[in-house]
Amino acid sequence: MTGPLATRLTERFGLAHPIVLAPMAFAAGGRLAAAVSAAGGLGLIGGGYGDPAWVDAQFAEAGEDAAVGCGFITWHLRDEVLDGVLRRRPRALLLSFGDPRPFAPRVHDAGVPLLCQVQTVADARRALEAGAAVIVAQGAEAGGHGDRRATFTLVPEVADLLAAESPDTLLCAAGGVADGRGLAAALVLGADGVMVGSRLWATQEASVSDAMQAAAVAADGDATVRTSVMDIARSLRWPERFTARVLRNRFTDTWHGRERELRESGADAAREWSEGWAAGDPDRSNTFIGEATGLIDAIEPAATVIERMAGEAATALAARRPDRSR
Amino acid sequence: MTGPLATRLTERFGLAHPIVLAPMAFAAGGRLAAAVSAAGGLGLIGGGYGDPAWVDAQFAEAGEDAAVGCGFITWHLRDEVLDGVLRRRPRALLLSFGDPRPFAPRVHDAGVPLLCQVQTVADARRALEAGAAVIVAQGAEAGGHGDRRATFTLVPEVADLLAAESPDTLLCAAGGVADGRGLAAALVLGADGVMVGSRLWATQEASVSDAMQAAAVAADGDATVRTSVMDIARSLRWPERFTARVLRNRFTDTWHGRERELRESGADAAREWSEGWAAGDPDRSNTFIGEATGLIDAIEPAATVIERMAGEAATALAARRPDRSR
Repeated sequence: MTGPLATRLTERFGLAHPIVLAPMAFAAGGRLAAAVSAAGGLGLIGGGYGDPAWVDAQFAEAGEDAAVGCGFITWHLRDEVLDGVLRRRPRALLLSFGDPRPFAPRVHDAGVPLLCQVQTVADARRALEAGAAVIVAQGAEAGGHGDRRATFTLVPEVADLLAAESPDTLLCAAGGVADGRGLAAALVLGADGVMVGSRLWATQEASVSDAMQAAAVAADGDATVRTSVMDIARSLRWPERFTARVLRNRFTDTWHGRERELRESGADAAREWSEGWAAGDPDRSNTFIGEATGLIDAIEPAATVIERMAGEAATALAARRPDRSR
Repeated sequence: MTGPLATRLTERFGLAHPIVLAPMAFAAGGRLAAAVSAAGGLGLIGGGYGDPAWVDAQFAEAGEDAAVGCGFITWHLRDEVLDGVLRRRPRALLLSFGDPRPFAPRVHDAGVPLLCQVQTVADARRALEAGAAVIVAQGAEAGGHGDRRATFTLVPEVADLLAAESPDTLLCAAGGVADGRGLAAALVLGADGVMVGSRLWATQEASVSDAMQAAAVAADGDATVRTSVMDIARSLRWPERFTARVLRNRFTDTWHGRERELRESGADAAREWSEGWAAGDPDRSNTFIGEATGLIDAIEPAATVIERMAGEAATALAARRPDRSR
């Protein structure tokens, strides 16, 4: 397949567009992953914290013929969960948030392309040691979990690292990529493609409540915060460097900066958060989305988003051709 | 003048390249501003905290014929300092970090183009109310003072705002733009040009110590931190939302997260910081630079940096033309 934005990523994975679905825990189920792959991107199921029953159900929902992959939260992954997915021969296996090296041999042995999402240059060096086929450089503007570096500087810096040390390793940009301008910018910054979270979270196929999607559509990009309070509420022991970007609301306004207090005496608040989360309530729990929420104004089918993103990117690049007459 | 990257910014200001020097306090003196303007960009003297004697000296060093402007830290600006600079008929006047509206009428009355650097969409709306000719959208990856939003999402979101509400207002991207890839990415994200800080801080004409420049060249982009501790050490009462990005060192490792203690009992540490700053010592004080430090590997003349940035941007855009044969 070739599209208007053919890159090494589209060639290597047989894609129409250099767009990979971020394997967002809970939100990127089989339905969304299959829709992205059917639209010419690479769909990844959000294996998240590694619940085998949920992952099995998502692969079933995607369907036997869906060319989808899967992603996991590395620090929370167990060998047997990884092996269970690898037996399905996923199109790709992504690891993020932790050291991928202990798991990499199993992925390589299965003949599955290893994608490593990284948040720093130091992470990227570790991903090269793990033998990543694709490094996904994720900036802090991303929704959900991430670290501190920004997409705009991390992508070219990792591109320089790969050019010097591993030129066959591909590079995707993640964090803030929500339209054709972002896709085009990622390519000129040195990426071979993009990983898209928030914009595909805000589609009809995503496993997200209507109320949370409506909250995201209504918000501008100033309305998010990167914090750990929802992980404390869920009793998830994330490594300290990884916080999550969500829409600010009463919960984050109350507890962000008071993490110790929430941990020690916030049981009622934590229970209310969890009940709100189960109900998909953006006021009582939190809506996981990035700064790109300010670029999203409708909930559409994933294929519509992907086609428009690719078309707009081609237009943005054509409009900026340096040889254009003005 | 026209260069390979002609935009509305180059046309409006008569530039060869769509590159504006960030008016970095202390570092962007008359010598650097004049060098940037002579190279076809728009040089802005870093009026900073508004010391009239220093600003006068910088305009004198730039020279009578230098088409340079000046920038100020808005929350620290006084009317008489602004008026003193406006009487010099600067090429442009930039305000950042605070509400520009109280000062805007004086700038308009002087017939000087008003540039407003903004850190959020809310700031951008305020800059439109101030009648800005150019809005500079600054991401948190920038060196020195800034806020939380990222360049990659803030630029297209502000571009959408301007398209809807004030299409004649120009837009520059700031924060992380250090080479031709960044310039090209900013243009496809919707900017008419870029404001460059760190990369021009790291030039021969900048008023920066050799030791600090050497520290920046040696650092990768993971090595910075956004913090307030150096402002506490200097007794500068910055509004809480604005922190500054610097190279991490012993001082930031010791005090970041212990701001109250530094304020209450850190007099010795503050004195040592100030002595280190006066000496240009990157170990005892701090090196103000952004994440782009990881993209900088030499101290060169400003003209060399600007010419290469423009040339590389044209190349990056040409290489990504969607109609290229592969």
